[in-house]
Amino acid sequence: MPVAHRMRGALALSLMALLCAAAKPAPMLIDRQGSFTVGGTVIGDAAKSLHCDHGFVEYQIPAHPRKTALFLWHSASVQAWQQRWDGGEGYQSLFLRRGFPVYLWDGPRVGRANWACEPYNVTPRIGTDQMNFMAWRFGTADGAWFPGVQFPKTDPQALDQAMRARYDEFDTTPNALLQGGAAAKAIDRIGPSVLVTNSAGGLRALVAATKSDQVKAIVAYETPAFVFPEGEGPKGSTGPIDSIRVPMADFMKLTRIPIQIVWGDNTEKTFWRGSVALTRQFVDLVNAHGGHAEILMLPDVGIHGNTHIAFADLNNVQVADQLSLFLKKNKLDLR
Amino acid sequence: MPVAHRMRGALALSLMALLCAAAKPAPMLIDRQGSFTVGGTVIGDAAKSLHCDHGFVEYQIPAHPRKTALFLWHSASVQAWQQRWDGGEGYQSLFLRRGFPVYLWDGPRVGRANWACEPYNVTPRIGTDQMNFMAWRFGTADGAWFPGVQFPKTDPQALDQAMRARYDEFDTTPNALLQGGAAAKAIDRIGPSVLVTNSAGGLRALVAATKSDQVKAIVAYETPAFVFPEGEGPKGSTGPIDSIRVPMADFMKLTRIPIQIVWGDNTEKTFWRGSVALTRQFVDLVNAHGGHAEILMLPDVGIHGNTHIAFADLNNVQVADQLSLFLKKNKLDLR
Repeated sequence: MPVAHRMRGALALSLMALLCAAAKPAPMLIDRQGSFTVGGTVIGDAAKSLHCDHGFVEYQIPAHPRKTALFLWHSASVQAWQQRWDGGEGYQSLFLRRGFPVYLWDGPRVGRANWACEPYNVTPRIGTDQMNFMAWRFGTADGAWFPGVQFPKTDPQALDQAMRARYDEFDTTPNALLQGGAAAKAIDRIGPSVLVTNSAGGLRALVAATKSDQVKAIVAYETPAFVFPEGEGPKGSTGPIDSIRVPMADFMKLTRIPIQIVWGDNTEKTFWRGSVALTRQFVDLVNAHGGHAEILMLPDVGIHGNTHIAFADLNNVQVADQLSLFLKKNKLDLR
Repeated sequence: MPVAHRMRGALALSLMALLCAAAKPAPMLIDRQGSFTVGGTVIGDAAKSLHCDHGFVEYQIPAHPRKTALFLWHSASVQAWQQRWDGGEGYQSLFLRRGFPVYLWDGPRVGRANWACEPYNVTPRIGTDQMNFMAWRFGTADGAWFPGVQFPKTDPQALDQAMRARYDEFDTTPNALLQGGAAAKAIDRIGPSVLVTNSAGGLRALVAATKSDQVKAIVAYETPAFVFPEGEGPKGSTGPIDSIRVPMADFMKLTRIPIQIVWGDNTEKTFWRGSVALTRQFVDLVNAHGGHAEILMLPDVGIHGNTHIAFADLNNVQVADQLSLFLKKNKLDLR
């Protein structure tokens, strides 16, 4: 190859290296990170015992952190907080870059906290893939993608990752109470925190907020069930997961913090429309008692195509910007 | 308070802040991080299916990384790689600071990968606390600490964390094969890796090394069972966990990489003495076939008091230095 060609090739390569370096974000600066267990109980006696039913917390504290932590509470797999389906950065990294201490939570009996005090059986359910596709609003029940859905639908690897982003969980009221109690202990240890949740995680976080004063706000992506005061709110079944009734004194604790429930696109085409209606009942009831709850329909602010897991969707930076706005408005982003 | 006093107080505070800042290590620089699932299968049919039996990988790539990754493979909880029992940094952070890409692994059916293809039951076993205390060599079976043990034994919080650093695992040959197969796929995706393991994780990693050419070395803390070639090695039971027999062609793959099996202190006072003897048989057999295996008894290099989980002990920096030495000697620390 003539020297001129080689030089041109080298120049092109250097230019590419420069461009790539420019496109690559600066490294995250992590002051400290680790994990701990919290809550739980001890069964047996001094001679023969078992520590069990704790939760598992994984944390990262960036350099020069903001004062309030984000406590990310999944309802399928922590992976959805760590990674977008196309491999882009999840909320964990996005909000570390924005200066927040970030905590990932596996509640008692879930994931890395599945060291339970009671026996349980796990039964694989064939058909869960199709159920998730529909319930996560990737598309309709017959397997067709929603037009404009914020999912890398031509990438089979992305769908494979989404279908595997699950681990065993327990959508029962006793488990929600167990998880809410353990999380409250975690948050007491962590200090001022915003609970950022997905799906049934939102219900569990509402329980936690009745038990820890360190919960400073809740931002919940698509909550199917809520905490209501005894004697008020909807009667009977509230949808796919049972809501939880608490004494009015506990419910009143939810009126002292800002709460935002976020919904994505296409809800009205699916069973989620019932949960959106329930969200409005919850928000209205909190506010009727002097609270500060709101519902954010992403399409109403021009953000379209989001699934049940908006924070892992292709446009998750846009969705994250809405969370940043909320944190700023509520002075939860101070250093 | 007189101004002079206030000034002196402020000065003392600034001095303290300076001293603390000096003691605090520089932040870790993380280029990218996230998680993904890998391996696994799909059961059912196109109309009704379930993705299951994958493993879960959590990763961090530091700025200016070395070429070879560390793949940390626990046998109780990933927490032991993340955090020392007294809250100090675990191997995850220590080796990120030393420039290595670090991967944490939950094998199929374990922790965040417990989305199994087969039903299973979990039964809490009261008495596991006492069994761990003894099996992890914190002390004797009657609950007395070993003298000089590298555990913060006066801190009840530390013992609580240790007793909770478990999640369900399955010490069976089929599970070791399942995990080894999925890990090999993970490592094929990651590239050149050193498998760093604890306890039964070592057996599973040996299986993985027969299935992926990207396994460049194994450093195993306290392996109770090994991979042996059919027709050679020990006969009958090999201790608390079954060893695995493979065709000679697969065993020969283990002769092509450096392998170090590390043991802590007090092994001869416990049932682990049998596993140390088995380690010598394994090392001798690998080397008789032209391999590069070695046993490192930490007390032989002046490192005393280590438990079954040396990398989470109080002196884990000293133990980590031995790993750094091994990596350097084998040119596995190049950038």
